[in-house]
Amino acid sequence: MPSCPLLPLLPRRRPPPSPLLLLLLSRSLHSSPPELDLSHPTLVVWGSNTGVGKTIVSAGLAASVLSPSSPNTATFLYLKPVQTGFPRDSDSRFVYRKVSDLFRHRLGGFSAQLLASNHALKASVPAAREVLGARTERPGEEGEEASTGLCCYEETRVGTGESTTGDFKLVCKTLYGWKEAISPHLAVEREGMAVEDSSLREVLGRLLNSSMGGGGDRRKENVWRVIETAGGVASPGPSGSIQCDLYRPFRLPAVLVGDGHLGGISTTLSAYESLTLRGYDVIAIILADHGLSNEIPLLSNLRHRVPVLVLPPVPEDPLNDLVDWFCESSKAFSSLQDLVQSTHSKRIQRLHDMPRKAGNILWWPFTQHKLVPEEIVTVIDSRCGENFAVHKVRNDREMIVRQFDACASWWTQGPDFALQIELARDMGYSAARYGHVMFPENVYEPALHCAELLLEGVGKGWASRTYYSDNGSTAIEIALKMAFRKFLLDNEMLMDSGNGISSERCIELRVLALNGSYHGDTLGAMEAQAPSSYTGFLQQPWYSGRGLFLDPPTIFIHKEIWNLSVPESFESDQLKPEDMRFSSSDALFCPSRDSSAIAGIYSAYISNQLLQFSKLSCSTQIGALIIEPVIQAAGGMHMIDPLFQRILVRECRNRRIPVVFDEVFTGFWRLGKESAAELLGCVPDVACFGKLMSGGIIPLAVTLTTEAVFEAFKGDSKLMALLHGHSYSAHAMGCTAAAKSIQWFRDPFTNPNVEFKEKKLKELAP
Amino acid sequence: MPSCPLLPLLPRRRPPPSPLLLLLLSRSLHSSPPELDLSHPTLVVWGSNTGVGKTIVSAGLAASVLSPSSPNTATFLYLKPVQTGFPRDSDSRFVYRKVSDLFRHRLGGFSAQLLASNHALKASVPAAREVLGARTERPGEEGEEASTGLCCYEETRVGTGESTTGDFKLVCKTLYGWKEAISPHLAVEREGMAVEDSSLREVLGRLLNSSMGGGGDRRKENVWRVIETAGGVASPGPSGSIQCDLYRPFRLPAVLVGDGHLGGISTTLSAYESLTLRGYDVIAIILADHGLSNEIPLLSNLRHRVPVLVLPPVPEDPLNDLVDWFCESSKAFSSLQDLVQSTHSKRIQRLHDMPRKAGNILWWPFTQHKLVPEEIVTVIDSRCGENFAVHKVRNDREMIVRQFDACASWWTQGPDFALQIELARDMGYSAARYGHVMFPENVYEPALHCAELLLEGVGKGWASRTYYSDNGSTAIEIALKMAFRKFLLDNEMLMDSGNGISSERCIELRVLALNGSYHGDTLGAMEAQAPSSYTGFLQQPWYSGRGLFLDPPTIFIHKEIWNLSVPESFESDQLKPEDMRFSSSDALFCPSRDSSAIAGIYSAYISNQLLQFSKLSCSTQIGALIIEPVIQAAGGMHMIDPLFQRILVRECRNRRIPVVFDEVFTGFWRLGKESAAELLGCVPDVACFGKLMSGGIIPLAVTLTTEAVFEAFKGDSKLMALLHGHSYSAHAMGCTAAAKSIQWFRDPFTNPNVEFKEKKLKELAP
Repeated sequence: MPSCPLLPLLPRRRPPPSPLLLLLLSRSLHSSPPELDLSHPTLVVWGSNTGVGKTIVSAGLAASVLSPSSPNTATFLYLKPVQTGFPRDSDSRFVYRKVSDLFRHRLGGFSAQLLASNHALKASVPAAREVLGARTERPGEEGEEASTGLCCYEETRVGTGESTTGDFKLVCKTLYGWKEAISPHLAVEREGMAVEDSSLREVLGRLLNSSMGGGGDRRKENVWRVIETAGGVASPGPSGSIQCDLYRPFRLPAVLVGDGHLGGISTTLSAYESLTLRGYDVIAIILADHGLSNEIPLLSNLRHRVPVLVLPPVPEDPLNDLVDWFCESSKAFSSLQDLVQSTHSKRIQRLHDMPRKAGNILWWPFTQHKLVPEEIVTVIDSRCGENFAVHKVRNDREMIVRQFDACASWWTQGPDFALQIELARDMGYSAARYGHVMFPENVYEPALHCAELLLEGVGKGWASRTYYSDNGSTAIEIALKMAFRKFLLDNEMLMDSGNGISSERCIELRVLALNGSYHGDTLGAMEAQAPSSYTGFLQQPWYSGRGLFLDPPTIFIHKEIWNLSVPESFESDQLKPEDMRFSSSDALFCPSRDSSAIAGIYSAYISNQLLQFSKLSCSTQIGALIIEPVIQAAGGMHMIDPLFQRILVRECRNRRIPVVFDEVFTGFWRLGKESAAELLGCVPDVACFGKLMSGGIIPLAVTLTTEAVFEAFKGDSKLMALLHGHSYSAHAMGCTAAAKSIQWFRDPFTNPNVEFKEKKLKELAP
Repeated sequence: MPSCPLLPLLPRRRPPPSPLLLLLLSRSLHSSPPELDLSHPTLVVWGSNTGVGKTIVSAGLAASVLSPSSPNTATFLYLKPVQTGFPRDSDSRFVYRKVSDLFRHRLGGFSAQLLASNHALKASVPAAREVLGARTERPGEEGEEASTGLCCYEETRVGTGESTTGDFKLVCKTLYGWKEAISPHLAVEREGMAVEDSSLREVLGRLLNSSMGGGGDRRKENVWRVIETAGGVASPGPSGSIQCDLYRPFRLPAVLVGDGHLGGISTTLSAYESLTLRGYDVIAIILADHGLSNEIPLLSNLRHRVPVLVLPPVPEDPLNDLVDWFCESSKAFSSLQDLVQSTHSKRIQRLHDMPRKAGNILWWPFTQHKLVPEEIVTVIDSRCGENFAVHKVRNDREMIVRQFDACASWWTQGPDFALQIELARDMGYSAARYGHVMFPENVYEPALHCAELLLEGVGKGWASRTYYSDNGSTAIEIALKMAFRKFLLDNEMLMDSGNGISSERCIELRVLALNGSYHGDTLGAMEAQAPSSYTGFLQQPWYSGRGLFLDPPTIFIHKEIWNLSVPESFESDQLKPEDMRFSSSDALFCPSRDSSAIAGIYSAYISNQLLQFSKLSCSTQIGALIIEPVIQAAGGMHMIDPLFQRILVRECRNRRIPVVFDEVFTGFWRLGKESAAELLGCVPDVACFGKLMSGGIIPLAVTLTTEAVFEAFKGDSKLMALLHGHSYSAHAMGCTAAAKSIQWFRDPFTNPNVEFKEKKLKELAP
């Protein structure tokens, strides 16, 4: 058993990140807020188009929550992050005034008080000028000029009773206002006051959290928070990012305001799909009736998945004060309020129950359940690029906390948020276009396209065939079958039988491999790896270890020097200290080392080991070399001397032993190159890829190989074929994901690696 | 080696379909046209909303193709399947007149002739009345009254030259017209003339094919075909189905007319996503400019994936004859024409190249490539429910042909088209919400929800733990590890070592299994199956067959009688013929057989076999029973006597040998019940599911087990844990797909099985 820590047994530990990973860490283009208090109902109001009545819905909901007849008092926070047409149009002012009016109107005999305020935080210079010009006409507004604009505030108190704090509270805020009534990204172009997505989210997150107050018995508080977007779901925000992307890191429950007009079924369903494609939960659709009963086809096409609420037609006369309309609508808004409240309660309850339920019915891999009490189970609400959104309870608050996925979900997750959304759309497309498609004797675009991308990338210069499967272990088992057949053919161990080619069972095939190696958990993959904690009788009763396992020379970095550590068995007395130290990775990987003294020592050691092995039995043969190039990952993140691996490959080639590279961990830029083989400077006969290949989003693995290996399976008998399939499918979705992900990282405009970016952009320059 | 044909070696063969499968076959709710000639550019014009100018785009494209200055003549077919507001509004009439006008206008000195016609095939009674009333005013129209409406026709000839056939040809057709300018589903409600989706598609398919003419050198023809939809992409058609679903079986290239107004970025992007989520290829977006430069954020948010073309603002004056506007737009339409033409040519070229490329770079599982020449490779363009759309060349025509997926993609595909689209959206949602999420010590909704559904369904009454993996083979390897550990614990073969519990390597564990069994292709799964063609040294050099393999009694149906065939080794002389024949499956599966004479014979045979085996070596133990309940699938579709399997389970239970059911093939309604265990009438300790579980759309498998088996892995040492993981993930997308699929088939409203439906609906009735 190696003494190194076993990575999968220690999921919390993390080896030094690769340069690419470090780059990934440093980006926070789609940063989510560090934490968000979700103790109370919080939602985003979206529109299926512009002008469908988002603000009237926000006001109606606020008026329903802040009703003088309500048995419970409440605080309602209304946030309008982005307002154009300001100050002439101000949705927060509309909500502020309308809800105050309605409160007054509904007071009747109730002893209740509403303290309402409206507050604009920042305005562009042209918008601010307009506010200042208008100030003398509108008493009660206060202004404070800012560099880019102005901060204005108005408040009012409505109601009866003695309370000075106000029983009910309405807080309306506009975060950013521009003067022209155009899309925010255009308003920024014309009026200035650019706002980065991350700044907007930061301000918004702060406002949401501060609204939750402090101290007191928080459970008794009744706080509601509503964010109203601008325009339609995919309308651009100030930076040009579309809003359904911009607000995604919060992933708040969505209320979609539908369109009751002709054409409104289409825009409502499509808007619903755009929200869904970004992982939002749409808890209700609400729309104003225009005599077309749009709710009926909406409900049936949504298969009653989402409730659809209908409001009476909104009076078109701008002079109408809407009081009658709000009265008529009160039942619909009350339903909306109940729906939001019950969805919220159910969500919180479910988040609370999840650790217990998980402990009761799930069985986690590589986990000793006895050591995982309920309280350490992590409840993952969602992922946004490199971060999880995790549910936590802190001081009685229901928090959604950002947690960096430090081990990239055990080295499988790659995409940032932008790629994640691209993949989501492509997955949907591929599922709709193909569903499941069987593969043998068939061809379809994703399988072919992905194969082409693989062969012109990680397979370039050596591979010509692509064999798909589901995961790394399977890819390895397939690779071994390929290598063994090639070995038998090359070494004339295949014999003609009646029904085609056959071979004698009396030959026993073994692999040549390294101690500390790891190739997966299915028996065949495990048989190719050296004994370890994973392979004990208790863990894998059928493991026997069908290999000759060598001790490899390893590299460790100390004080910026790359040091070589050679096992004693190498008889390396003649090695000089200067052979063992490298000032840079370039020096270590340098091809000129192939003719160094140490290359001779390696070569002699390997030859000797193979000779000793061959003497043990004439029926037992080394049929394949299998190594993880450069880094042995699961076995403990050990770096192997690349020279040793190159010599190994050379010695095996000389003996007609096919070479298998397990690149499941190292593949696709993990080590700064698309493949580790590229870094190592030599090519295999067979190589396995998985994990990052499909952006980690879906199980897919591939075994690439040469035409010569492929030819070894050709013959007149079907039984000569490679009999390994699983779902017998090249997984349209998996190949789609892989193709997208491979292209994304190959493209200097989207690859996060600065060095790669610069090099590629130079190549592209005229 | 069994003499039966090996299913995966013979993918074209098909065993008798199950009752459920037969039901699936009989449905054709989403039938695609049997074939479609795609030799020439054919596309659908979609709108991002109603009123965005689809018709003006169709007319512009037609005018561009039918330009007197064009070096090549052409035929342009314009189809408007659904027209409301008819005959006052008639998009086909608009195209007919406008293109004729433009042709005349552009004639100049060219010697060219256009023959244009407009034809309305069917109208509702109110619409027909209006046409008849208007007829006297409009000379040149011909009418023929139909049961539900009217058929009217107009044609015109424009141009100079001698030709009598017309150098250029424009054929405009409205398929169905309703009078009121409302959504088609409402118009049907009010005016009648209901049109089923399948009828509409049939008529449309016929018109498209007939337009391709007959005889002559088809390659020299220049035919264009455009279908224009009604309203937005997700606006309902006459039946209430939304149009992006209605036209999906054709999956024609899409041109999306975007919206240049405020809010138009959002509706355009969302409409694009709705098309994408149904597997359409959007080849261009085209929109009229309204001074907002909507094309810029559209292009950047689409990452330049789709070209966005801009048209000059459309004059709002209804009296404007648009001739000037079309002249200004001619460059944009010419670009659109080129784009459509080149996309079409590239698509056809790619479809042609695919078989050759596939033969060159793919490696299919279970396939002897030597026996698969290029011409038998199937090019799958897409799937629609149970049918593939396949590319074929017939008499020089480029055809997309419907091909029934007779073996359900090797028993993995289940969903009909409706579920396929639901799954596509859910996949998109799940990918966006979670991406890849690591599983150990974490919980997230899809993994938990799917586990709950599994345990209340196929695990009901026995299982309490859910272990996820990627495919059936892996699920089997996990199941064997579980069973062996339980066996060692129950039989006191685990010993305390320093670092926790351990066991001696000197015990050799074997499975009890049946000849003809098959459990997958990874080594561990293969070791648990009896020797077969799959397991030869040539196919799997490491196979040894670690089991005691018994010959099972099988069932074959002859003349509606279920006959039992018992192997000779059973010494079954005392069996009477009446014991061997069953008039129904009920009689065969009846639990009362457990106390029959034959039960005693089975019991004695099994006991004797186990006794003989135990005498061979005291260190070799049977540690698990593994069977495919009821049907041995890949081994040749043999039905095993259910009584024999029940007795096997009982005998193993008596000996504390854990029981594993491999339900990867039989699970999830394959045999009319959610699990085969339910049909068999007994439960296992461990069961494996895959394939249909996730609707076949994504790799996912699960191993379910009891709490007692789970407890066998608990201890203070991490090494006691079950060390098997692969991507260490419960696959958010896979679990989402499985949850949706499980619920779909459990729901009487969506499950296609009539018997199940009736039973469930009775249960639901008050």
